[in-house]
Amino acid sequence: MTQSVSRTYRLGEIVARLGGELIGDPDAEIRRIATLESARPGDLCFLSHARYRAQLSGTRASAVILAREERDATALPRILCDDPYLYYARAAQLLVSENRPVPGIHARAVVEAGAEIPASVAVGPGCHIGRGARLGERVVIEANCTIGEDAQIGEDSRLGPSVTVYPRSVIGKRALIHAGVVIGADGFGMAPDAGRWIKIPQTGRAVIGDDVEIGANTTIDRGALDDTVIEDGVKLDNQIQIGHNVRVGAHTAMAAFAGVAGSTRIGAHCAIGGAARIWGHLTIADHVTISAVTNITKSITRAGTYTSVLPSEPSREWAKTVAHLHGLERLVKRIRELEERLPVKRKR
Amino acid sequence: MTQSVSRTYRLGEIVARLGGELIGDPDAEIRRIATLESARPGDLCFLSHARYRAQLSGTRASAVILAREERDATALPRILCDDPYLYYARAAQLLVSENRPVPGIHARAVVEAGAEIPASVAVGPGCHIGRGARLGERVVIEANCTIGEDAQIGEDSRLGPSVTVYPRSVIGKRALIHAGVVIGADGFGMAPDAGRWIKIPQTGRAVIGDDVEIGANTTIDRGALDDTVIEDGVKLDNQIQIGHNVRVGAHTAMAAFAGVAGSTRIGAHCAIGGAARIWGHLTIADHVTISAVTNITKSITRAGTYTSVLPSEPSREWAKTVAHLHGLERLVKRIRELEERLPVKRKR
Amino acid sequence: MTQSVSRTYRLGEIVARLGGELIGDPDAEIRRIATLESARPGDLCFLSHARYRAQLSGTRASAVILAREERDATALPRILCDDPYLYYARAAQLLVSENRPVPGIHARAVVEAGAEIPASVAVGPGCHIGRGARLGERVVIEANCTIGEDAQIGEDSRLGPSVTVYPRSVIGKRALIHAGVVIGADGFGMAPDAGRWIKIPQTGRAVIGDDVEIGANTTIDRGALDDTVIEDGVKLDNQIQIGHNVRVGAHTAMAAFAGVAGSTRIGAHCAIGGAARIWGHLTIADHVTISAVTNITKSITRAGTYTSVLPSEPSREWAKTVAHLHGLERLVKRIRELEERLPVKRKR
Repeated sequence: MTQSVSRTYRLGEIVARLGGELIGDPDAEIRRIATLESARPGDLCFLSHARYRAQLSGTRASAVILAREERDATALPRILCDDPYLYYARAAQLLVSENRPVPGIHARAVVEAGAEIPASVAVGPGCHIGRGARLGERVVIEANCTIGEDAQIGEDSRLGPSVTVYPRSVIGKRALIHAGVVIGADGFGMAPDAGRWIKIPQTGRAVIGDDVEIGANTTIDRGALDDTVIEDGVKLDNQIQIGHNVRVGAHTAMAAFAGVAGSTRIGAHCAIGGAARIWGHLTIADHVTISAVTNITKSITRAGTYTSVLPSEPSREWAKTVAHLHGLERLVKRIRELEERLPVKRKR
Repeated sequence: MTQSVSRTYRLGEIVARLGGELIGDPDAEIRRIATLESARPGDLCFLSHARYRAQLSGTRASAVILAREERDATALPRILCDDPYLYYARAAQLLVSENRPVPGIHARAVVEAGAEIPASVAVGPGCHIGRGARLGERVVIEANCTIGEDAQIGEDSRLGPSVTVYPRSVIGKRALIHAGVVIGADGFGMAPDAGRWIKIPQTGRAVIGDDVEIGANTTIDRGALDDTVIEDGVKLDNQIQIGHNVRVGAHTAMAAFAGVAGSTRIGAHCAIGGAARIWGHLTIADHVTISAVTNITKSITRAGTYTSVLPSEPSREWAKTVAHLHGLERLVKRIRELEERLPVKRKR
Repeated sequence: MTQSVSRTYRLGEIVARLGGELIGDPDAEIRRIATLESARPGDLCFLSHARYRAQLSGTRASAVILAREERDATALPRILCDDPYLYYARAAQLLVSENRPVPGIHARAVVEAGAEIPASVAVGPGCHIGRGARLGERVVIEANCTIGEDAQIGEDSRLGPSVTVYPRSVIGKRALIHAGVVIGADGFGMAPDAGRWIKIPQTGRAVIGDDVEIGANTTIDRGALDDTVIEDGVKLDNQIQIGHNVRVGAHTAMAAFAGVAGSTRIGAHCAIGGAARIWGHLTIADHVTISAVTNITKSITRAGTYTSVLPSEPSREWAKTVAHLHGLERLVKRIRELEERLPVKRKR
């Protein structure tokens, strides 16, 4: 069973809490955040970019969050602020009722001896909590999760359904981990021996910092000897793969399908696009932006934006491009011949 | 426990049901579909392409499905039709016994108060069905699934093991959802605030139409404010990622590892190849084909086939290609110099 | 509950078991393997590459595994051998205590009638073992797994939490399958019919050989008619996708995110890099190495290394590269014009 905590705010209350300049009725009631297009009375909307300004005229919203320079873009009640998108994030956190399960260990969960589970924790049905696992205050573990022996999960963290946390993994405070995530499975380590692969036991841990979010079905391997480390404030989207002994620096964000091969260190405050592939044993500096679908094959020592994405073309044109690409060797030769055949006198 | 419904068909019965022209004994007994190479007596095979015609001579099949123009390609009993591959699909549906679980809620499932579960539904052990969830007639939920509060699943839909359906998600009729799928987890939304990420609560839903198939471990995020929508008849392969607020048009098919970033709208009847990456906030027209491993970075307004895939080469040749590619800037300069050094008189 | 079997070895014992030349005190006690940087007394380290030799001077390790030619690189007790990395793998296998669950079927597991489960098997809570499933001696099934009807799992195999094995799938001996893996879900097969997709029932099996390791959240589809086959000794990393009717040859290794489309046959002893994409209906020879992020669009008949990876550049430079690439058609034309405009006399 869950407890739903929902309430209505007056516009003036929101501004009192989150700041900004209010123009219009402070008593207007706000129940929900919505997009300009789908808003109904009682909804608060936001204009994150001037290009959507036309949507202001038709909206049925009760109020709008605007950048200061958009002050006169509507006659609706409005909140002026420096960063409407950030304001929207904070307002949404205020307005959205969190569906918090009632604390307690469900009768259909299995908790092994020696696990530490405070009374404020909620453990759903079908969960298995291993011997010696330690959960912090107010942790929520949804249905069908498996928490291995001696794993630790910090206070106020929440795991969606069917998450696996392997033994000895460590998760910090206020983590949000979505369904199907696997933390601390073996890294991919093996030594070749006359055509066969000899497994290298993976004895390090996966260690996740505070305030980390991890998207559905993402996998983070344990270290081979030392630990795999995800630092504080890292945000990982769905279906990401983090190899063994990787370190991801604080407040770095990675979009879906991004992959980091073993032993690479990524700096803090990086932004890694979807399906970007970062090879193993590299070092990526702080504040690096990597475009979606980009291959990083060498270390990056300077902040900046890096890319290797090829945009698509209609297939017929692309076929020509590829043919020319593979013909470059011959083309270079033709240019060299032309240079040799030209009159001796060089311009310059 | 499951109920197995298997039976034998006579060739004449199959043609009576599915059409086509029968040549040969209508009483031949058919138990199974098989490939020409592995067929045994009692098997029905098909020839989908003339290039496999040689396999006809050695087959032990009892009958073959052929295109009309292949009428004389074998002396075996045969069914002539316009599209042997489609005929094969329909014949297989006829012949394959479906393993349908006996209806009922397993004693080891947990169903919260207020969930609507008709008597015709089968819920496996280890499932958790949240408060207010509504399942249609004859829905099958295999073991260890988690269905969130107020989620809806339409009649005759079937979920494989360990599927997660987040609260308020909607799944239509006759859906087939394979193991490990996650529907309705949070989209990847956050606002930057002085080097940290502020989470944007994801309050939209994931809404899946009728007759949709979703492959193992695929993830479909809920919308940020409005809904993520998968329209009727869409077929998604394994390990696909659909970002928040995406709309996938009816009868579009996407192969494994395909990814669609947030807020993109894909048209109807599109075919998206494996590991194709479609960026966010784009619009893709109807009837667009995107090759495997292709990056779509801009909207596509016209039907057609689009690609950006680079075929591989032996590594030594590829290294030269990449060097030439990175040297194009210099090459263009050399050509310009050549053009400047050539006699003034231009051929035209 | 699990049984932990951990013990200390003397250096002489290790060499007696694994070979190599010991220099130094054979009675030195070894408890653990560690990296040179993080080692403490009681730890055994290894030097896999001369480039890490500087780390030898500062290490607190009790002993080091070295290549024979590094004999004098340290004064620490040391083991000389031909392949320190392989020696490390074997020593780690010796030293690492395996956490083996106590045999028995957990009271919270559900085992259907007719499943064969020897007394030496451990089945965790929340597991569902289908009718007619057969498990070999000493198999370990961790929590929340679903094993379908008539599936087979060979002796000494181990499944992590939340693994799904679909009906009739076959897994060999000594398999190690990590959390969230899905074996034997339907392949992606359908026939187009006037704008709709008609599902082709997938009636083949997924058949996994002996000594196979499968990484977290990897998916291996069942065959359409014949089987999907993973041969002995294959090692698959996390989040790999193997399509229906694929055959992966013995002792081939594939890194994370690799994908193989339907009906492709990969040879033995291949090494497939992360996120490599191998298209359908191809044949790849034995001993082929495919670089990470490489597209294989045609069959490969000769051993060797193949690649199509584009390394990234700073975005501004990359934009020029892409512009030049798309301008190649025009560039080729300019060169042809230059060639036509040059004096007739050809240098040769």
